[in-house]
Amino acid sequence: MTKSPNPQLDETTISSEQIFKGKVISLQVDTVELPNGTQGKREIIRHPGAVAVLAVREGKLLLVNQYRQAMGRCELEIPAGKLEVGEDPMEAAQRELKEETGYDCSKIRLLHSFYTSPGFADEIIHLYLAEDLIEGASSPDEDEFVEVHEADLAEVKKYVADGWIADAKTLLAVYMWELAMNTGQFGHA
Amino acid sequence: MTKSPNPQLDETTISSEQIFKGKVISLQVDTVELPNGTQGKREIIRHPGAVAVLAVREGKLLLVNQYRQAMGRCELEIPAGKLEVGEDPMEAAQRELKEETGYDCSKIRLLHSFYTSPGFADEIIHLYLAEDLIEGASSPDEDEFVEVHEADLAEVKKYVADGWIADAKTLLAVYMWELAMNTGQFGHA
Repeated sequence: MTKSPNPQLDETTISSEQIFKGKVISLQVDTVELPNGTQGKREIIRHPGAVAVLAVREGKLLLVNQYRQAMGRCELEIPAGKLEVGEDPMEAAQRELKEETGYDCSKIRLLHSFYTSPGFADEIIHLYLAEDLIEGASSPDEDEFVEVHEADLAEVKKYVADGWIADAKTLLAVYMWELAMNTGQFGHA
Repeated sequence: MTKSPNPQLDETTISSEQIFKGKVISLQVDTVELPNGTQGKREIIRHPGAVAVLAVREGKLLLVNQYRQAMGRCELEIPAGKLEVGEDPMEAAQRELKEETGYDCSKIRLLHSFYTSPGFADEIIHLYLAEDLIEGASSPDEDEFVEVHEADLAEVKKYVADGWIADAKTLLAVYMWELAMNTGQFGHA
């Protein structure tokens, strides 16, 4: 992005202590100098980044049902997954779509890249629109248990109201889809 | 929500080890039994939850510019903040709106509650629509340095394209706002 229009808000990192390095995330506590010259602590999660796929087939949104330990229950989300080391996000999006739903796509483009929790995490999700879907067999990872759902907008809205759809990226995809029905195009482009 | 429609996807917690307890987040590593009977590890962040406010005044979205250590730069977001212990989310939304922008509102309602990163965090954001705004003086927290911006939809889209707006909750708010311009109402209700 263009440079921050007000550098007077910037914080300066004085030191950084790594607390934990896991398989998926790592945790560090940074000591920063605040704009008023005092010091503060920032608890920061480092994450490899992820991709998510907005895919609509015959008027139905592709969704996957999966258990989320952080929530303590199953949730319905658009297909998504972590980036492998060095992986191109667009290829990752095609890979996750295929693994989780079985669909290939011959047309794909980036809609938005966004931070999920900028207050404490650097996780960024690259959200793609996949089109021209070709049905095939899914191949989830060994420790991944997912179930594919296809739902029209009325069903999707019911899942949102019920709380079965309950995460930011999927909700964003739902609103982008609904707006696209009104405007005829996905995204702001 | 209604019970998970496929309990065969459920994971069972075997044990949970707390790694870190900070001011904002805590980190635990859970050992779980997967649906196929094998064991897996889940790295989980616990977060107190947060509120965010979609507020439009005279055709302009209320935004705050602030430094985000996790991103290493400033970002423009809708007003938001963590829940205090025991705090009612709606009161928290009104408090954050007032603290960060100076505006009071006489009308407020919940649009959605959503998880930001269900793969590794339990953070939930309660997104409110604030209406009938009354101008006043802002009063940010002592260690909070923010700058208020008001932007119409064309400006907001430019900020999204530039990456100055780059987080999930703000992007969701932007699409909800744009859809509301098309349909005449906020949310799916």
